[in-house]
Amino acid sequence: MKQTLLTIFTLGIVLIFAGLAAAQSVDPLPSWHDGAAKQSIIEFVENVTKAGSPDFVPAAERIAVFDNDGTLWAERPMYFQLLFALDRVQALAPRHPEWQEKEPFASLLKGDVHGALADGMKSVAEIIMATHAGMTTEEFETIASDWIATAHHPTTKRPYTEMVYQPMLELLDYLRANDFKTFIVSGGGIEFMRPWTEKVYGIPPEQVIGSSIKVTYEMREGTPVLVRLPEIDFYDDKEGKPVAIHQQIGRRPIAAFGNSDGDLQMLQWTTAGQGSRFALYVHHTDDEREWAYDREAGMGRLDKGLDEAQAKGWTIVDMKQDWKVIYPHEGKFQ
Amino acid sequence: MKQTLLTIFTLGIVLIFAGLAAAQSVDPLPSWHDGAAKQSIIEFVENVTKAGSPDFVPAAERIAVFDNDGTLWAERPMYFQLLFALDRVQALAPRHPEWQEKEPFASLLKGDVHGALADGMKSVAEIIMATHAGMTTEEFETIASDWIATAHHPTTKRPYTEMVYQPMLELLDYLRANDFKTFIVSGGGIEFMRPWTEKVYGIPPEQVIGSSIKVTYEMREGTPVLVRLPEIDFYDDKEGKPVAIHQQIGRRPIAAFGNSDGDLQMLQWTTAGQGSRFALYVHHTDDEREWAYDREAGMGRLDKGLDEAQAKGWTIVDMKQDWKVIYPHEGKFQ
Repeated sequence: MKQTLLTIFTLGIVLIFAGLAAAQSVDPLPSWHDGAAKQSIIEFVENVTKAGSPDFVPAAERIAVFDNDGTLWAERPMYFQLLFALDRVQALAPRHPEWQEKEPFASLLKGDVHGALADGMKSVAEIIMATHAGMTTEEFETIASDWIATAHHPTTKRPYTEMVYQPMLELLDYLRANDFKTFIVSGGGIEFMRPWTEKVYGIPPEQVIGSSIKVTYEMREGTPVLVRLPEIDFYDDKEGKPVAIHQQIGRRPIAAFGNSDGDLQMLQWTTAGQGSRFALYVHHTDDEREWAYDREAGMGRLDKGLDEAQAKGWTIVDMKQDWKVIYPHEGKFQ
Repeated sequence: MKQTLLTIFTLGIVLIFAGLAAAQSVDPLPSWHDGAAKQSIIEFVENVTKAGSPDFVPAAERIAVFDNDGTLWAERPMYFQLLFALDRVQALAPRHPEWQEKEPFASLLKGDVHGALADGMKSVAEIIMATHAGMTTEEFETIASDWIATAHHPTTKRPYTEMVYQPMLELLDYLRANDFKTFIVSGGGIEFMRPWTEKVYGIPPEQVIGSSIKVTYEMREGTPVLVRLPEIDFYDDKEGKPVAIHQQIGRRPIAAFGNSDGDLQMLQWTTAGQGSRFALYVHHTDDEREWAYDREAGMGRLDKGLDEAQAKGWTIVDMKQDWKVIYPHEGKFQ
């Protein structure tokens, strides 16, 4: 008993030091320059988490939704999942002779990526969905996991999972430390993301929402499998984002983070709720460390959203001005 | 400093007593009679949670899925949501003259519930979906919340939320205390359940999966709304359950709980995964305290599932033999 009490006593000492350390103001967003964007985030989080605050939100309702492409990781020269799909088109082309005549595959196989994508996100989704079907869900998971573990970005030569934004990783951690539940709500394919989001972002599969293709349940020699069909089930972009949030989360988020017009409806839906709400656009302004694009961009266009963000006073992150580093490999601040 | 240490010291004493109390074997399932069913649950949970066990499953992968109707709460004389829908049919009939001629509504309005449901779960879902559309999601949430707060069961006269199974509430708590994440995967309407599942079962909206109707995003005088359309989006029964689990959770559960053939594919899919898996059927055998039905039942039929459960050695709960009480109001054991 005496020894146990000694242990507890020691534990007490440790707790005191831990408490003192915590009490010192540790910067939760060390990669963010001090400025309006960072300040708006911290003010919002403190407002909704402080007991007794008129803006207090119970932990269970602290839902935060994040777009992925261009918001949590880069999206140039094109959506990374599209680069994965291009690899798949090449690999699968011998088994799909009809692709030689059928757009957007025909253009892709001729090396004309620009032509293939002339129709925008819709044809992007078609390429992705079509190249991802005709196998079980477990087989696809293996293909996606293998690719993400081995492929490299065409210009930076880094693994794609290293092209995530360090300031956004800190933001995810900061929100979770304040009992937020963080979700991805992406136009990208849900099964392309799920194999790695937990490791890279700390977001488990069940909190990843995205576009999907239909799957069907089959018995194969007594073993049940889910087979991926070449048919789009849900396209999670623009108006689709609030719809998916409603169907899959069932609660309106209190904070939403995006970078393009495809996220506008998600930000509108989030901020239209009662009480304190937060909306943030990541604005790609850094053509040296990352890429600069907005109103004229094909993928990741930010035009209407930028106007609405300015009109409504949403937070706009100027990547060049607001972020000390872009990627984790540039080093961390503390 | 001295006083702080004294506080910590006192805290230590408290911790010691708390630890001693916890070390005494508290029965996690006090409403369950000791027997094979209870034992199989506890053995499974201890196996997958004990560090170093060959069956150990990391907390993040401890996904447990529960059917709702007949598994967590009663489903007689018919699915409770159908009783809600009948009330809605009556209330909305003046605005839908076409229902006088159109089945299954015509039969319902004539009081012929049996005739209306002759087509089984599919027409049930149609009635539910059709009576639930033509309003915003927030309006529907209010209607569903009001009904569940005020309606009473036709024979027991109790609020429906008191007709949940006490032994299953204990099971949900026990699993969560062992870091399981508990989900509902029901043939019922997702938006009918979400307003009350957190309060009644401790299951938050984002962990409720069910059948759904389509919703569309609209701007009404500058405010975004989601409008419910009279069109089925997803029918979450039989083969639909593993599909929905895959699309919305993205991980295969390690434990599944159901009571009917509509849950069979969910139990098959769960148990076909690698490692230790658990499947349980609630068998309605108690025609005094609850209802007795299985192979011949219209709603909640358990026939093929019962055969497969017996053949594969899944746990079958005999409600009459295994449960000390059915509903919470019968009193709790400790």
